[in-house]
Amino acid sequence: MIRIGLDVMGGDYAPDSVLKGALMAYSAWSDTFQLVLFGQPSVIQPFLKSNPEFAAHCDVVFTEQVIEMAASPVRALVEKPESSIVKGLEALHAGQIDGFASAGNTGAMLAGAVLKLGSIREDIRPCLMGCLPRPNGTDGIMLDVGAIADTKPETLRDLALLGQVYAQTVLGIEQPKIALLSIGEEPEKGNAVTVAGHKLLAEMENIQFVGNVEGRDIFSEKADVVVTGGFTGNIVVKLSEKFFEIAQEYNCADLPFFKRLNYETYGGSPILGVNKPAVVGHGISSPLAIQNMIWLTYDIARTGLCERIHSALTHE
Amino acid sequence: MIRIGLDVMGGDYAPDSVLKGALMAYSAWSDTFQLVLFGQPSVIQPFLKSNPEFAAHCDVVFTEQVIEMAASPVRALVEKPESSIVKGLEALHAGQIDGFASAGNTGAMLAGAVLKLGSIREDIRPCLMGCLPRPNGTDGIMLDVGAIADTKPETLRDLALLGQVYAQTVLGIEQPKIALLSIGEEPEKGNAVTVAGHKLLAEMENIQFVGNVEGRDIFSEKADVVVTGGFTGNIVVKLSEKFFEIAQEYNCADLPFFKRLNYETYGGSPILGVNKPAVVGHGISSPLAIQNMIWLTYDIARTGLCERIHSALTHE
Repeated sequence: MIRIGLDVMGGDYAPDSVLKGALMAYSAWSDTFQLVLFGQPSVIQPFLKSNPEFAAHCDVVFTEQVIEMAASPVRALVEKPESSIVKGLEALHAGQIDGFASAGNTGAMLAGAVLKLGSIREDIRPCLMGCLPRPNGTDGIMLDVGAIADTKPETLRDLALLGQVYAQTVLGIEQPKIALLSIGEEPEKGNAVTVAGHKLLAEMENIQFVGNVEGRDIFSEKADVVVTGGFTGNIVVKLSEKFFEIAQEYNCADLPFFKRLNYETYGGSPILGVNKPAVVGHGISSPLAIQNMIWLTYDIARTGLCERIHSALTHE
Repeated sequence: MIRIGLDVMGGDYAPDSVLKGALMAYSAWSDTFQLVLFGQPSVIQPFLKSNPEFAAHCDVVFTEQVIEMAASPVRALVEKPESSIVKGLEALHAGQIDGFASAGNTGAMLAGAVLKLGSIREDIRPCLMGCLPRPNGTDGIMLDVGAIADTKPETLRDLALLGQVYAQTVLGIEQPKIALLSIGEEPEKGNAVTVAGHKLLAEMENIQFVGNVEGRDIFSEKADVVVTGGFTGNIVVKLSEKFFEIAQEYNCADLPFFKRLNYETYGGSPILGVNKPAVVGHGISSPLAIQNMIWLTYDIARTGLCERIHSALTHE
């Protein structure tokens, strides 16, 4: 059975929100995967005692240290080798679990994933992927959404490939349409990195490159995979969250599309480009978001995404 | 009386949409300013004949050539000296009108504004400004929204000053809060240009710099002026348009905030950094958008924005 590790200590509302989310995920899907909780005994033991049925289906790895949400990532990884994040990633590397999810310090998860799991190819910088709801009910994806602030044209090519394999493997889109986010449809529109990136993407024979798309096309069916640098991608994702909040204020957040703009729907952002399935959740993760983050991690582990990415990116 | 020039030939639905919008603007505000129409006699004359009261309050400059929406900007300016855009900008430079608005070729308007009106300071690249509706009913602004695709840190400093003077002069915000759009609130978060730009903005003594804001803060009161490069700014603006369209599909576009996300509400984007008031409208401009573009141009001319920008940017 697939084993999914969960960082009980990560997130603004951890450990309560995380444990409640774990319970929700378990209640709905207990036969499908096994949860492995990483966290402090003082936190986990009382919860398991109150939830004996859940406890019977969980594994636990007790970890003493906690990486704070605002800690400097690399320093935290060095100074806290006994933290839930470090222990979780080490267990993932060692094959004791098949995926690891944390709503904790994103920087520590990203740096830790590279350090402990390794990049799929030496020159690849891991990125964060975001899901894009579309009004027709299907999902698209965008990457990078915040890991790579300064993007080179070659990075955009890697992102296109990572996104393609994700769309094929996890979303089941056989021949995904790949687009580059820019400020005009013409190849020569955009900033220097995007214009150079467009040329590289247009030369790739193993993707279906549909050209540039604009801001208005992000949540549309023009593209299944929207490629962009982490700076712009991050701003798009956070702006979309804001729109969801505004929709909530106006009591229209339950409408199908707006509902899926809610960060809770997808639960987290996969780290793509490392050798094993790691997912980071939003710091503010609610129990529902944690549940969905666990499922997302399970989906990535179950479908063998990392193996398929490895094969696509090392046998070009 | 203030005289506002209007490019009758510019826009996907020109001239019909433009003339209808001119009539709307006139009907509501005929005593406040005088319209000067720039366009082909074969188009303007029949309209004036059918609207004699409007005709009595309009001036007309007949122009024979039309710069197409998709034309190469610089080439179009050279090859069509008798076009409505070139003639309008020349009349503005000569003081025959006090502002000029066009929903036509944005690139031609931008290049033409530099060529015919001149930059306020030699080293300043003109930018496009966008209005940001806020849920509390007030407006903020963002710049650049598409003129400067590759932004240098020094450009961000110019944008901050341009935005400050606009907010003070046109929006009446005495001491506007100026923020830099980035992917984290900490000064060291962001891409290289933004991190360097943060340092420059933090050193400015003549602005109230409130630090970085994130994508979720764009439509909020954290900042009155959001400074960003034209690449990201353009994507934000077009994504917001998409959200308005989706709200329309779900029949909630009449809710106060969503309604103001409609590009028609503000009517256009001022070109800031040139010596005279020039405004570009959305290519798809409806009559309502044209009306509001005319009013926006009037507001900029009336308040003496360009003179105040000149004084702020040349006496630093």
